[in-house]
Amino acid sequence: MKIVITGGSGFLGQRVARELLERGQFNDADGNPQSICELVLMDIAVPTNGLMNAKVRYAIGDVADPKFIAETLSDDTDCIFHLAAVVSGAAEADFDLGMQVNVDGTRSLLDACRHLQKPARFLFASSVAVFGAPLPEVVTDETTPTPQSSYGIQKLIGELLVSDYSRKGFIDGRTVRLPTVSIRPGKPNAAASSFASGILREPLNGVDAICPVEPETELWLISPRLAVECLVHSFELPSEKLGNIRSLSLPGITVSVKEMVASLERVAGSAAARRIRWKPDEQIKAIVKSWPARFDTSRANSLGFPHDEGGFDRIIDDYIRDAGLKL
Amino acid sequence: MKIVITGGSGFLGQRVARELLERGQFNDADGNPQSICELVLMDIAVPTNGLMNAKVRYAIGDVADPKFIAETLSDDTDCIFHLAAVVSGAAEADFDLGMQVNVDGTRSLLDACRHLQKPARFLFASSVAVFGAPLPEVVTDETTPTPQSSYGIQKLIGELLVSDYSRKGFIDGRTVRLPTVSIRPGKPNAAASSFASGILREPLNGVDAICPVEPETELWLISPRLAVECLVHSFELPSEKLGNIRSLSLPGITVSVKEMVASLERVAGSAAARRIRWKPDEQIKAIVKSWPARFDTSRANSLGFPHDEGGFDRIIDDYIRDAGLKL
Repeated sequence: MKIVITGGSGFLGQRVARELLERGQFNDADGNPQSICELVLMDIAVPTNGLMNAKVRYAIGDVADPKFIAETLSDDTDCIFHLAAVVSGAAEADFDLGMQVNVDGTRSLLDACRHLQKPARFLFASSVAVFGAPLPEVVTDETTPTPQSSYGIQKLIGELLVSDYSRKGFIDGRTVRLPTVSIRPGKPNAAASSFASGILREPLNGVDAICPVEPETELWLISPRLAVECLVHSFELPSEKLGNIRSLSLPGITVSVKEMVASLERVAGSAAARRIRWKPDEQIKAIVKSWPARFDTSRANSLGFPHDEGGFDRIIDDYIRDAGLKL
Repeated sequence: MKIVITGGSGFLGQRVARELLERGQFNDADGNPQSICELVLMDIAVPTNGLMNAKVRYAIGDVADPKFIAETLSDDTDCIFHLAAVVSGAAEADFDLGMQVNVDGTRSLLDACRHLQKPARFLFASSVAVFGAPLPEVVTDETTPTPQSSYGIQKLIGELLVSDYSRKGFIDGRTVRLPTVSIRPGKPNAAASSFASGILREPLNGVDAICPVEPETELWLISPRLAVECLVHSFELPSEKLGNIRSLSLPGITVSVKEMVASLERVAGSAAARRIRWKPDEQIKAIVKSWPARFDTSRANSLGFPHDEGGFDRIIDDYIRDAGLKL
């Protein structure tokens, strides 16, 4: 099997690639395991200290460039993980860039898939940001997405395209709506949710962090480990289990910023927690407040998606172990 | 006020233009009546026997061509009725054409508006086709649109763009979801719903008609007169009454094909009804069956939208009078 991952140099792309290499095989559309021959990681740059393996190839270019996509995909491409995106804060700040990458890029990729000899399996990473006010207390699989950010609108347009291309038989598509992933390693990014990793990661690394939202703010979170497991699980789901509705919300946990800081204090001590500086940012607060924090993910549960067990303490423990930190 | 109507040579475009000319004035964003200085009708051709008036100008070109749009819109453009579309059957048969006109055309138009000196009021004509199986017995304002046709997907993408461009302050947008308009004058078109006019119009004109769906099929209909009244009403709604949610379903009536034929027989006699030949078409049946036929339009009702009174008999009477037929 040849698998293409867009955003393959990114944090999730690298972890998905690593997971696939460790598994070594992958179920095809009929549920039969097939060995993975090649992993093509598409991105704008090769990552520093990135994954290197005989089966891994980096394809460097712009995912919104149809020519680059056509050169990278080939008739033996079986599977595509479409993870590349302009993140929420950046898409809000630069409307045209968001439209270009998140809408035009997704469409170019889908169009390239459509012209492959056989329909590829296509996973689209969408986001909890497709939901926005007015919202019920608990978002269910029936809640209408009404995004209140350009990022959310662009992700929802991607979902609709994945749905229609699947219905037409151009691809075998599936979309998962990711909760905010925390704790991400590395540096802060332009996502409005960047702080949800930063206020843990920076203090754990002995660095001060800014929290732009109130302590009472609740978030819908998923750990990096679970996010990768869910992405791979969604990919292996037989198409008929999805039916007409190709999008689903992934399981997550509801945690307030205050609870996250309490976990940090329990695991790493009060000095770590004191590294957080509270500096409200109205623009970030508005975007984050428009996202729901409580979900009923019955559909994902019935489809066998795994859950984060052990709460936020466990997520911090995982991060410390993965990052090789000595506290 | 300068008003631009895309699809201005079409049946609805012509009727909206006529209605606006008859009114002579139009409420601005503050609810103050302003006189209409110019009506620009954008379309691919000038209509036969089309509306001619000193205030009317035809702009002929492709609505998916950004250059044509830029030439037609100007900084004094106050209002845009975006009615142009590739209809449902055609968008299903020619996927690329549908995407080009219904998605790219809408986006080009919105982008042109965004670069005007002041945000224009923008009405987008969407459709009941944004809804699809699985559906509740009655579609409400909270029902999630899950289109099962490319036309429905493309209209829903247009709605999302109108919503985000409004939130960003690029336009003052509003979207109405039109029921199937019946009875349309003129010739059959490539809409899957074309028969919903044809099985009345053709017999009333002494011509045979084909009905591609079962008599029990229920439809959600609006008369041409009400459709025009609702389009103009939605345009005059103050922006703040719409809030975050820019889309709404228009009031309609639920009628089965059997009831439509019974009305035809009551108004025009059994000879007219016998002109209908029942010839099921699986593709049209599938598209039409995916559309809901029963709605709760509480939101439109509370916003003062008018309703079709008098049932389908009245709609046939209106058609006969408008078309100047002598039975």
